[in-house]
Amino acid sequence: MDEFELINRFFRPLCVDVAENDIGIGDDASVLTISKEQQLVVTTDTHVESVHFPAGAKPYDVGFRSCTTSLSDIAAMGATARWASLALTVTDASDDWFESFAGGAADALKQCQASLIGGDTTRGPLVITWNIIGTVSAGTALLRSGAAPGDGIYVSGTLGSSAAALTFPLTGVQSYTALQDELRNRYWYPKPRFDLAHRLRSIASACIDISDGLVADLAHLARSSHCGAVVDSVQVPVDSALIELVGIECGLQMALTGGDDYEICFTVAQENESELMCLGKKLNHCITRIGHMIEGSGVRVIGGSGQEITVNKTGYRHFD
Amino acid sequence: MDEFELINRFFRPLCVDVAENDIGIGDDASVLTISKEQQLVVTTDTHVESVHFPAGAKPYDVGFRSCTTSLSDIAAMGATARWASLALTVTDASDDWFESFAGGAADALKQCQASLIGGDTTRGPLVITWNIIGTVSAGTALLRSGAAPGDGIYVSGTLGSSAAALTFPLTGVQSYTALQDELRNRYWYPKPRFDLAHRLRSIASACIDISDGLVADLAHLARSSHCGAVVDSVQVPVDSALIELVGIECGLQMALTGGDDYEICFTVAQENESELMCLGKKLNHCITRIGHMIEGSGVRVIGGSGQEITVNKTGYRHFD
Repeated sequence: MDEFELINRFFRPLCVDVAENDIGIGDDASVLTISKEQQLVVTTDTHVESVHFPAGAKPYDVGFRSCTTSLSDIAAMGATARWASLALTVTDASDDWFESFAGGAADALKQCQASLIGGDTTRGPLVITWNIIGTVSAGTALLRSGAAPGDGIYVSGTLGSSAAALTFPLTGVQSYTALQDELRNRYWYPKPRFDLAHRLRSIASACIDISDGLVADLAHLARSSHCGAVVDSVQVPVDSALIELVGIECGLQMALTGGDDYEICFTVAQENESELMCLGKKLNHCITRIGHMIEGSGVRVIGGSGQEITVNKTGYRHFD
Repeated sequence: MDEFELINRFFRPLCVDVAENDIGIGDDASVLTISKEQQLVVTTDTHVESVHFPAGAKPYDVGFRSCTTSLSDIAAMGATARWASLALTVTDASDDWFESFAGGAADALKQCQASLIGGDTTRGPLVITWNIIGTVSAGTALLRSGAAPGDGIYVSGTLGSSAAALTFPLTGVQSYTALQDELRNRYWYPKPRFDLAHRLRSIASACIDISDGLVADLAHLARSSHCGAVVDSVQVPVDSALIELVGIECGLQMALTGGDDYEICFTVAQENESELMCLGKKLNHCITRIGHMIEGSGVRVIGGSGQEITVNKTGYRHFD
């Protein structure tokens, strides 16, 4: 049973009495009405050593990345991150370890002026859970579920670099080439797209952050929106360092399936596409149209001559 | 370095920009202003197998107890529990395990009509983190910090039974005496004091739930209130099953130092004590006056003939 089946079967029944228009389980984060004007946006993410990040990683990097990837869920909803709780389970860590980990977490929170407001520190194998609470004006959160057939599909930034970084050692004292260093930095220091997503609230019809991989996350968006999606692979913005390292074919596969980039994927109705282009220029932010939504279901990836491209895997899943 | 020093040194600096009258780190839960009328109350607790509960415990019990002890933090603030997130890290659990664990969590949440709204399920050593969000009318949360010299100190229910339960095996197939069963049930199925604490908001000056042990938790309350506390040990409501099992002297030590009962300890100014007695009768709830707050600091425990009683340990701490 994979994680999604597990949640649906055993934990979704515990999601009760969530108000109309609120979202419990099933988006990047929950959306909860707290007043007429405001909704809370809440996300929880766990990072286990050797599962979600390599053993022996620098504590600063672990602190920064674990916190930032949770912030990315809040960003992708168009919300403002406000408060963070940290559950940190660790065995026999030194003062230096804690200081460095806390430094990374502090720098992550500073990106969006969020505050640590509590948590729990316990002894055990290294497991880190961040719970982030954000706020958003009522009814304006960017959900996975708003896309319609005909909407354009867009991504921010470039894709695949984190997947490439995972192909060589991420920790240790060995020296890296400048290219490897660039990719490693993309993995360890993702940038939540707060500015962009915040302004997309009046433009985009649906949004998700790319944590499992473009095709896997777009499939979540399509399923939630009761649509299908077609991706024009030629348009997918593959990271240039990645192309240099592994070539375009392999780079494309990494961009389609590699997670961990924490860019956002969103859809925009035709009538809003010109406004989106203006926004991209204004923010000086790379935004790329990679396809469109269709009637039906699933995600199809099309090559330059119209042929269907087989995607090697569809994102990371626990409990496979 | 113990957990409290660790938090103060490395994590308290990350608690920034919390509004005046809000509480970040340092109470049973955080208190965060969300509108003029309302505050959020947020708590995070981690439970590690073999550290916080015995290995091989029934998954139903683990689900129920881990969730309920977090709800207790919300109860002790006088707040209403609303939304829960679960971060569950587990290795190779069976469908039966998940079903039973989720059943325990569901029954815990039903106690206060709270809803599961999200979480994360990952593979690794068994670690469970609950994050609970409650709400409370602005300015009415019961804090640790409001006690003043002269206030009476009260506890709900009886104390020490969970500490006694920890002296014999909590899991396994062996048969238990009726007495042991009673104590085990107190450990596995604590009852958050939502009703009582909710009504104490207009009566009590400070409140804390007893998770680390009466003396340790009262010391937290006293420190936050810049007072000392004197406990009259003769008045401490030692669980009768516990007295039967280990005698009054040992039972008293367990009641003073054993955690895990999840009763509440609170203080009441003299002018409110009669109202408190009425409330206790109305709710048919056992409430016991066990001492009073004084100028100074620390917690002193006094015996029947006025002698000072030495307390064997002062509560559970990680990283000792």
